[in-house]
Amino acid sequence: MKLLEQLCKIHAPSGNEQNLSKFLLNYIHEHKSHWKTQPQVLHGEAFQDCILLVFGKPRSAIFAHMDSIGFTVRYGNQLVKIGGPDIENGYKLVGEDAQGKIECTLKYDEEEAQLAYDFDREIERGTELVFKCDFRETEDTVQSCYLDNRLGVWSALQVAETLENGIIAFSCWEEHGGGSVSYLSRYIYEQYGVRQGLISDITWVTEGVYAGEGVAISMRDSLIPRRAYVQKIIQIAKKSGIPFQLEVEGAGGSDAKELQRSDYPWDWCFVGAPEDNVHTPNEIVHKKDVDSMVALYKVLMEKL
Amino acid sequence: MKLLEQLCKIHAPSGNEQNLSKFLLNYIHEHKSHWKTQPQVLHGEAFQDCILLVFGKPRSAIFAHMDSIGFTVRYGNQLVKIGGPDIENGYKLVGEDAQGKIECTLKYDEEEAQLAYDFDREIERGTELVFKCDFRETEDTVQSCYLDNRLGVWSALQVAETLENGIIAFSCWEEHGGGSVSYLSRYIYEQYGVRQGLISDITWVTEGVYAGEGVAISMRDSLIPRRAYVQKIIQIAKKSGIPFQLEVEGAGGSDAKELQRSDYPWDWCFVGAPEDNVHTPNEIVHKKDVDSMVALYKVLMEKL
Amino acid sequence: MKLLEQLCKIHAPSGNEQNLSKFLLNYIHEHKSHWKTQPQVLHGEAFQDCILLVFGKPRSAIFAHMDSIGFTVRYGNQLVKIGGPDIENGYKLVGEDAQGKIECTLKYDEEEAQLAYDFDREIERGTELVFKCDFRETEDTVQSCYLDNRLGVWSALQVAETLENGIIAFSCWEEHGGGSVSYLSRYIYEQYGVRQGLISDITWVTEGVYAGEGVAISMRDSLIPRRAYVQKIIQIAKKSGIPFQLEVEGAGGSDAKELQRSDYPWDWCFVGAPEDNVHTPNEIVHKKDVDSMVALYKVLMEKL
Repeated sequence: MKLLEQLCKIHAPSGNEQNLSKFLLNYIHEHKSHWKTQPQVLHGEAFQDCILLVFGKPRSAIFAHMDSIGFTVRYGNQLVKIGGPDIENGYKLVGEDAQGKIECTLKYDEEEAQLAYDFDREIERGTELVFKCDFRETEDTVQSCYLDNRLGVWSALQVAETLENGIIAFSCWEEHGGGSVSYLSRYIYEQYGVRQGLISDITWVTEGVYAGEGVAISMRDSLIPRRAYVQKIIQIAKKSGIPFQLEVEGAGGSDAKELQRSDYPWDWCFVGAPEDNVHTPNEIVHKKDVDSMVALYKVLMEKL
Repeated sequence: MKLLEQLCKIHAPSGNEQNLSKFLLNYIHEHKSHWKTQPQVLHGEAFQDCILLVFGKPRSAIFAHMDSIGFTVRYGNQLVKIGGPDIENGYKLVGEDAQGKIECTLKYDEEEAQLAYDFDREIERGTELVFKCDFRETEDTVQSCYLDNRLGVWSALQVAETLENGIIAFSCWEEHGGGSVSYLSRYIYEQYGVRQGLISDITWVTEGVYAGEGVAISMRDSLIPRRAYVQKIIQIAKKSGIPFQLEVEGAGGSDAKELQRSDYPWDWCFVGAPEDNVHTPNEIVHKKDVDSMVALYKVLMEKL
Repeated sequence: MKLLEQLCKIHAPSGNEQNLSKFLLNYIHEHKSHWKTQPQVLHGEAFQDCILLVFGKPRSAIFAHMDSIGFTVRYGNQLVKIGGPDIENGYKLVGEDAQGKIECTLKYDEEEAQLAYDFDREIERGTELVFKCDFRETEDTVQSCYLDNRLGVWSALQVAETLENGIIAFSCWEEHGGGSVSYLSRYIYEQYGVRQGLISDITWVTEGVYAGEGVAISMRDSLIPRRAYVQKIIQIAKKSGIPFQLEVEGAGGSDAKELQRSDYPWDWCFVGAPEDNVHTPNEIVHKKDVDSMVALYKVLMEKL
């Protein structure tokens, strides 16, 4: 999981995904000759920092967001959130401004509800800070900040190796209000007529979804996907023999929000491994769930 | 009001409107030969579970949502809401899973803010439950769950009988975040150049809008429609002699949200009968308001 | 600043921008012959009450919203908000209904959280009330209700005088949920391929942004613009020598919300003078910040 570790260490908070985008373009360029099918690689200003991989005659599209949560430096030593990071005194944060590299500490004053950093100099206004990556691997688990969603990106890259027909979209801003899936999905629908979406992202270990029991197929979160489409996916999963779990939530969201509200009749379903310690530097995922995530995506992209 | 009763009894919570969609397609197929104008009937995968009826040369479009509020079974005996149903211990809920038909009872633990069902077996994860329909009719009123919005659908079907030019759109997901009017309105604008919308839905009896005083024309809810368009509608209503009431609210919303945020310059106005006991199994509407709703829609579709 | 005073006095709350739209069309008609470049003036039903000015071969677009905050008369003497006006007992409000001109007083009962007006007669349901304009000018400052965003509109008109290539969009509904920038930005992208946006609007004097220190370039508010685009703007501003300040906020929003969520890959940045007494009848802006706002827009529209 060397690649996953590399992905987790790249600075790419919402709105500034360009480092990860460049890394992926380079990775794709270097590896695609070994893939079963050569995709068209779409990127550039008309896609902002997003990337589309188009394989063969696509019927379905995988969306995997590249961005992460983090913090923006405000005035003095104040911080404002990027997305919804967990807050705990002492978390190590890293970044860079014109004066150089930064490694500082998160400070939270609960009474004043004030987020700040502790560092030996003032950091420039607008600088982004992200969790410092401490990548840990055991026989059964991977643990790091930003498994959400570098693991979803990583999984999509595994699927790419054997994908014959389908689209993989690497998106931006998912953790902070969205803003790229609207135009990606319009482009995909208009160019390829594709309207079946799969959200390759990481969900939560809960009282109903357990670590190590298989990838989660989400029947709903804060939004409700079209039931007919979700049932189709569940049927394919059942037939495949791959372990999976059904998730039912009343909260949470994903890139699917933009598909649901799209100007085009997109169906969508969230399919992803569950993690514990959500949005902390210590997100942890069971390797069995990673395996079943990749395996199920391969089947879904073939059968859907 | 046999048809209205049938509509109220169909299981069609947000995201799973297919039963109502099929019922309507069948109804339209059986009845349209008696209608004044034969509409084009648009449906199928490119419209998900929605239906468009296009009559003559349309200038305006009616949007009537098919979906209802309800509950999704989570883990154990937990429930999560679909839309914003009223919560009261003892409400009867119905549904179906692979083990068969379900009739159970809503349980609400206020202290723990926990929604649950009471039933003699565990219900399968992801199963949808809706209010059990107890349809009641008096000389003056109709009462049932889901008058919101089966009455808006029913009214649109009455209007269809004599409609010469116009569009009727049966939409999905209105009660839970929206998701179909965006693409329906894009399609309508692009294909027919139509950008005048009317929202055929049910509103609230309040301190300013009374049962039996006529259909409500809403001047605003949480969103504000373009004043010039609303004034045009009010002028037509005044000239028509049909009883109506003006509504002004700071909250609430409808399919109009998606028209307001559309990529196309849609005007919209909510025109609908008021109900009491909103989002309970006992929604009640005065028949005079039903009559004036249908009558005003007929005039508006002609004059707008 | 006679023109600014005229703009501040025009009744144009969200949803009813037609008076300001007509004023601007008239102003443009009378003045454009003195402008360096003759723009195409796009308006009419397909743009609702919005206006587009297209100069030469545009690469960037300025968005300036015409609408203001205010109040809608509900039932009895109740009021509901349009947008987020400041609330204080005694604010003077003006409007008009079929019975004539209105000048009344805002009443707020904090305990009951009830907004009302005090007037010698009942005002008709649905009537809009706005702050009474008391325009004040000193050597250093301008003060009035609705500098947000009549000053943003005024600034765009100054820029228009010498603009050679670019688009100026006068938009609606910014203060209350949006609803016009979605279709304006679609039209602009499809017709002209333009996807660089600048938000000509007024921001806040805060602990990090001071009156008189120059126009604010916002690095983020509740949403996060693409960093690469904001950095480009900051570089242009630095080279220009025009005074400016960097803003970093975790809250607030603008017409940019609709660009961010657009079906097209728009970049955006908020560039505007800061004001104190936000959303009150006493909004105040330093003239130095007005000057640097106009100056920076002229440079940006040339260099971007």
